[in-house]
Amino acid sequence: MASNVGKMARSIPEETRTRLFLYLRELRCLQKKGICTIPSQRLAEACHVKSSTVRKDLSYFGEFGVRGVGYEVDGLTNELRSILNLDQIVKVALVGVGNLGKALLGFPGLEDEGFKIVAAFDADERKIGQKIDRVTVEDASRMEERIEAQDIRVAIMAVPASEAPAVAQRLAEANVNAILSFAPCELNIPPDIKISCVDLASEMARLVCCV
Amino acid sequence: MASNVGKMARSIPEETRTRLFLYLRELRCLQKKGICTIPSQRLAEACHVKSSTVRKDLSYFGEFGVRGVGYEVDGLTNELRSILNLDQIVKVALVGVGNLGKALLGFPGLEDEGFKIVAAFDADERKIGQKIDRVTVEDASRMEERIEAQDIRVAIMAVPASEAPAVAQRLAEANVNAILSFAPCELNIPPDIKISCVDLASEMARLVCCV
Repeated sequence: MASNVGKMARSIPEETRTRLFLYLRELRCLQKKGICTIPSQRLAEACHVKSSTVRKDLSYFGEFGVRGVGYEVDGLTNELRSILNLDQIVKVALVGVGNLGKALLGFPGLEDEGFKIVAAFDADERKIGQKIDRVTVEDASRMEERIEAQDIRVAIMAVPASEAPAVAQRLAEANVNAILSFAPCELNIPPDIKISCVDLASEMARLVCCV
Repeated sequence: MASNVGKMARSIPEETRTRLFLYLRELRCLQKKGICTIPSQRLAEACHVKSSTVRKDLSYFGEFGVRGVGYEVDGLTNELRSILNLDQIVKVALVGVGNLGKALLGFPGLEDEGFKIVAAFDADERKIGQKIDRVTVEDASRMEERIEAQDIRVAIMAVPASEAPAVAQRLAEANVNAILSFAPCELNIPPDIKISCVDLASEMARLVCCV
């Protein structure tokens, strides 16, 4: 069932899918504030889109919302998570347990979204064997076999930029499907592996260039 | 001179400006690899745009590149940094010195791009007074006056999501112009303050939803 929904998600127009993530993010914020229902107009305003767009986007997937009341926050959240194939726990491997890696291990947002870091690797002998937030740091030299043995398909790389290409290569060999990287440079891995790059320096530059 | 260039940057079409950041990022990677020149065709391919687009984008700002040789990496990097008003050191305040904050204090990419964290604040008494990468952690209760005294206009918030709205409010009162936030929710601050939000959970969700 979930995999059918996942297949369906692939045919959603790109713009709609992008907006579904916006709606989901706003709904998560409403949940944190303890808000149970939201009129489509308010959801639209919070996401900076027209309310007719919200209704049209959601109409792809059936009937949501009650006229005059709006959407039920928990219900719509669950529906969107199912539509986007996010309703299962996704196992994640973390490579690099420096300050950034530690921050990610302790970051509640990931688990809230269904991502569970189940393995962490570092090359530093002083870190190997340490337990951080329920995860024991393992020897990076055994990364490929450990990732394959646990059938982990998603990895986060929190390693220095200079090490990123080699680590990405090894993750590709371990049959990882998707990588979140904090290194700004191209990684030259097979095109069937999805990469998302969080480039903090570029984010800062973009933010400040017009101040 | 630099401020004139900065003013000019505001009238660059949005799409061109977005691509200038792509070019700059690629050029930085070439610098790290020790590559000195790049043909426009290769720069275009690396950024996934047409080479005629690269040439057109750059032609807004004068003549760059040598026919048959291409662009000189260091020279074009400096020109783009000047065009985007990124050729000055920008002072940054960091709020929150947990693992993420520590990672940011030790992150060479920020300083490479001209951002210097000159002040760091935390509410935890055990952290106040600690020196981390040349910056001494200060008492968050004095944040506003310390930011104003040092004329800091850019801040990074590395605080838990629950604290983010109040911290953002205080940064607004300290006359900060731009905030990089790691909290996913809306911050309700005046619209003249630029905010860039690095939402790691959403990045992960987006990355994985079509795996």
